Amino acid sequence: MNTSPTGAALRRALDGPFHQAKQRWRTEVRASDVVRDTALDMEQARAWTLEKVKWLAEQKLVTAGFPSSLGGTGSLAESVANFESAAMGDLSLAIKTGVQHGLFGGAITNLGTQYHHETFLPDAITVELPGCFAMTELGHGSDVQSIETTITYDPDTDEYIIDSPTESATKAYIGSAARDGRMAVVFGQLWVGSEHHGVHVALVPIRDADGNDLPGVTTGDHGLKGGLLGIDNGTIQFDQVRVPRRMLLDKYGGVDDQGNYRSPIKSKNARFFTMLGTLVRGRVCVGGGAASAARRALTIAVQYANQRSQFRKPGLGEEIVLMDYLSHQRRLLPDVARAYAYGYAQNELALQLERIMTADGADPVAARELETRAAGMKALLTRWANDTVQQCREACGGAGYMADNGLTLTRQDVDIFATFEGDNTVLLQLVAKALLLDYQTSWGEMDLRGTAQKTARMMGGIFMERTTARSVIDRLVAAARRMPESQQLRARGWHVEMFEFRESHIVEGLAQRMRAASKAEDSFAAINACQPHMLEAARAHIDRVVLEAFIEGIEECQDEYVTALLAKVCDLYALATIEANRAWYLEHEVFGTWRSKSIIAEVDLLCGELRPYSLALVEGLGVPQDWLVHPRAAIPPLVSGAASGRGEPAEELLAVS
Amino acid sequence: MNTSPTGAALRRALDGPFHQAKQRWRTEVRASDVVRDTALDMEQARAWTLEKVKWLAEQKLVTAGFPSSLGGTGSLAESVANFESAAMGDLSLAIKTGVQHGLFGGAITNLGTQYHHETFLPDAITVELPGCFAMTELGHGSDVQSIETTITYDPDTDEYIIDSPTESATKAYIGSAARDGRMAVVFGQLWVGSEHHGVHVALVPIRDADGNDLPGVTTGDHGLKGGLLGIDNGTIQFDQVRVPRRMLLDKYGGVDDQGNYRSPIKSKNARFFTMLGTLVRGRVCVGGGAASAARRALTIAVQYANQRSQFRKPGLGEEIVLMDYLSHQRRLLPDVARAYAYGYAQNELALQLERIMTADGADPVAARELETRAAGMKALLTRWANDTVQQCREACGGAGYMADNGLTLTRQDVDIFATFEGDNTVLLQLVAKALLLDYQTSWGEMDLRGTAQKTARMMGGIFMERTTARSVIDRLVAAARRMPESQQLRARGWHVEMFEFRESHIVEGLAQRMRAASKAEDSFAAINACQPHMLEAARAHIDRVVLEAFIEGIEECQDEYVTALLAKVCDLYALATIEANRAWYLEHEVFGTWRSKSIIAEVDLLCGELRPYSLALVEGLGVPQDWLVHPRAAIPPLVSGAASGRGEPAEELLAVS
Repeated sequence: MNTSPTGAALRRALDGPFHQAKQRWRTEVRASDVVRDTALDMEQARAWTLEKVKWLAEQKLVTAGFPSSLGGTGSLAESVANFESAAMGDLSLAIKTGVQHGLFGGAITNLGTQYHHETFLPDAITVELPGCFAMTELGHGSDVQSIETTITYDPDTDEYIIDSPTESATKAYIGSAARDGRMAVVFGQLWVGSEHHGVHVALVPIRDADGNDLPGVTTGDHGLKGGLLGIDNGTIQFDQVRVPRRMLLDKYGGVDDQGNYRSPIKSKNARFFTMLGTLVRGRVCVGGGAASAARRALTIAVQYANQRSQFRKPGLGEEIVLMDYLSHQRRLLPDVARAYAYGYAQNELALQLERIMTADGADPVAARELETRAAGMKALLTRWANDTVQQCREACGGAGYMADNGLTLTRQDVDIFATFEGDNTVLLQLVAKALLLDYQTSWGEMDLRGTAQKTARMMGGIFMERTTARSVIDRLVAAARRMPESQQLRARGWHVEMFEFRESHIVEGLAQRMRAASKAEDSFAAINACQPHMLEAARAHIDRVVLEAFIEGIEECQDEYVTALLAKVCDLYALATIEANRAWYLEHEVFGTWRSKSIIAEVDLLCGELRPYSLALVEGLGVPQDWLVHPRAAIPPLVSGAASGRGEPAEELLAVS
Repeated sequence: MNTSPTGAALRRALDGPFHQAKQRWRTEVRASDVVRDTALDMEQARAWTLEKVKWLAEQKLVTAGFPSSLGGTGSLAESVANFESAAMGDLSLAIKTGVQHGLFGGAITNLGTQYHHETFLPDAITVELPGCFAMTELGHGSDVQSIETTITYDPDTDEYIIDSPTESATKAYIGSAARDGRMAVVFGQLWVGSEHHGVHVALVPIRDADGNDLPGVTTGDHGLKGGLLGIDNGTIQFDQVRVPRRMLLDKYGGVDDQGNYRSPIKSKNARFFTMLGTLVRGRVCVGGGAASAARRALTIAVQYANQRSQFRKPGLGEEIVLMDYLSHQRRLLPDVARAYAYGYAQNELALQLERIMTADGADPVAARELETRAAGMKALLTRWANDTVQQCREACGGAGYMADNGLTLTRQDVDIFATFEGDNTVLLQLVAKALLLDYQTSWGEMDLRGTAQKTARMMGGIFMERTTARSVIDRLVAAARRMPESQQLRARGWHVEMFEFRESHIVEGLAQRMRAASKAEDSFAAINACQPHMLEAARAHIDRVVLEAFIEGIEECQDEYVTALLAKVCDLYALATIEANRAWYLEHEVFGTWRSKSIIAEVDLLCGELRPYSLALVEGLGVPQDWLVHPRAAIPPLVSGAASGRGEPAEELLAVS
């Protein structure tokens, strides 16, 4: 089925710099290559997933981001686009390449030296050497600094000894640990003699060629999960496992030929965060992958809503198409708008990742800015994706619950995205701390007391990171201020002012509360009381960053018609976000009750205005049509696809905007 | 493991009139009888479910609600309590008995005559005769009046001919249709000669003793779904299938010995709603079952949060238990409070069901009141259960995603509760219409134009159904009005006033808008614009009904300590609900910005005050401890259970309240 001209143009606009990479997936990858048969059982699903990841690697579809001399075929940003594309088909498949190429391969690339690259990367890229990323333990997940696994240097044999000293030191939930993994990058506390050097990472073979655990290694299988059936998550325990000294990924620290610890980074804390920082791509991918799942679900639900009718018009007897009901528009269209907003912000984030990770020389401020944004985007996108996929399932009624209709696996799989690569609550706090702190001086002191004390020294001054769209935005804000109040609801500059004020006011208030908390007798209790405030600050920050990215994306669009359509979509994103937070605006007297009610009415209105474009808008989200329909899907066919001649009111759109 | 004294007392209080029935489940039913092994595949799960339903029937645990002469062993209200108890173990199991005893058996009981009861009920009760409830079709779900299946009387043979004239007439998503069902109650349009008599219900054998489709019957299998693996949902098509005349469930209408149509109810519409009305128990059960799933999830998540620690206290180095974090309290405790509120309201609803369905003589007003409340409760409870179970999964991190830890099946199964037995959006509109209409005269005219016109005639007068707690409530309201404003936040009477004002104001506004809409040129568009308003009216109504039920429940509690604890829980339910709707209160100038902010702070405070009782509170939710832990659950054991001596600050509680 062909994409409509409007859909294709929207797709080009939303793909942005990644259009070529994403088009490769759409044209070269068939549904059978990336959409898993829902009837496969766990072992079949695992086998299928491994096979397809190897195939994708062979096709050079998931080999971006590595040195080209060793088999890399594209930029780091492109590797994110590839992950997002895979995630439009099957999230297990995306996660399998994420574990193999992103985490395992990425750790070798970023934490290893030339020796590690040349020795291990070629086989990691082709998946000849399936790998694990063994960071999380039973006892500690988000709190990586407290993990218990030890990596102890033995000068007698010039080896490291990897050990799980307690039950809670067991590596847990590790992808590829249960079945496929042959080697793991293992995070542990490095000890050299009596000295502790903090968390380091070693390469440890875990299985032989026949798939048996190597001596001292015990792997376990988590079995069935809430989803991600294709991922063989498992446990790994180490009982005094020895590896040669060169198996430590020692770019940022290790034992030298003389048996002494050496590191280019002095502070233990700074070293820890530098190591973790190199793994930021994982978070960027997880947020983007979740957004892909939401796009898939929205496409199915909007297409279904355009063909399914229920109940009749008063008197006339004609049945009403679901998409014509305001409540149904309200369920789907603001999330379609959000999919665009997050799409533009995600593109920007991927480019930021590329820029910073490949820059000559370290720029710690830029690196931390990237980490902050990646953390916040991951938290917001995965939350939204979970809510949206569920909403889409419900919007498709009983049909949405049938496995062959394309939504149920997505629902089950996207669930855990809220947890892995950083629990969302922890990530939002990380963002809030970053907003509060002078990054330069505070880096490495991440405990709560430290945060509070730093804040006190800041005297309430707040940090507002500016995006590249700044000049455009200043112009829009100025224009909105000159408008009569009655026109402001659709004035982009007014939206920006609302988003900015919310962010700056919440962060300022938080800074004041944290300053007071740092002086409290029970500082934990005092800081604990600020926690909901911290989460709000982080959300407000990312909301604003997303809006600015959307504005910049629209500015770059060359197609007048699509620009006008996107402007309406951006109106809906902005107003629906303000509407969702209108209690806060009212409480802070930013606007009054009349304005608040008129925002609700305006969102209703926008839903009605965008309804005729709903099919083109989901085409623009970029999920290939034939990936949506399972061959066995019997009743009722959820997707018949967007018609080519949809008679969109093109003139009207351009006239209105 | 023993239940703590506080937990046991809370359980008695929340069980209310169903304590004895629910205790039978807790003492006589082992986990292996009601908790499904997550490793079973689809066919195994189906077999397990059928086997266990037969066992439950044998134990007389699911045989309430039928005439005792034919095998019934308890009241109709008790049948709801049994459904809720089964749902604490496995939702497939609950739905299987719901289909068999509630829908199939219930239709025979309510729509059939003595002949049908004596001939079919005994085997329906023992599950010797597994049955289906064939109402929904591919083309029409919530809009039952538009189904296409025909039931045509043939005077030559004195038979009815059951037929699916189109593809979209196929019965779809029917429980027990794919594998187990031997007979179905089939909904279709009755034709006698050239006369159409509306929807009627016939008993139609569909499979022989060997499980083969009978001639003219074609069954299909929906296969895998988003959950409910134990339910064999399928399709049924009829090709001119003939059944003897007496197979029509003809209590409310059918062909007599002379071949003429006869019905005790004149109006076709009234007859339709009377027939559907007898099925209200299904909705009551589905809401209660979803609430059981939420209780199960909350129990696991709160127990986990009391033993899992992450990150350290500032300076001290001691790790912090998750339940001590305010954000974690915020995630779980308001929903624990809501579980109590909904529990009391559900008990009241089950009693109301019993009262009205067993009353001598029809009371149409009471019947419609029951249907309205059942519809609204079903919509709110299933929405809340979906959100809560997901929240609990996330609150347990990666551990919550492992199938053996008790949450994932619940998450997958509870999803469809938002859709079946009436899509929630449709149900909320039904509630809103009931609030607007003079039931007596408007019954049977359910189209939107009719609603709008009726409303116009009402002149904005609104209906507020009073619960039995009225006198208590009047006293509380009067007391709150005498209090200084600073004490009102915890005054029950103030909560009631807030809930009542929200309901009455929204309904009044809606009535005005609907009156205007009825005069509009495009009445569909005008009424469509009121749709979000309708949904809000329904929610506000049920919120108020729930609060009143909670208040009455507390009034009836004899234990001073438990009463004080429940009062705090009710404070949290009430304030968290007001908090969630505070934008509305601000917009309507019910309270100002200062009060709005102080409500947020009060919810924080209440979370902290209830935190020490969190384990006892989830014990009170009544899920047997050994049903929570899967034998294979390995890492980390999610539930260690509440300790017996928890050192609750009992004195303090009584002093404070």
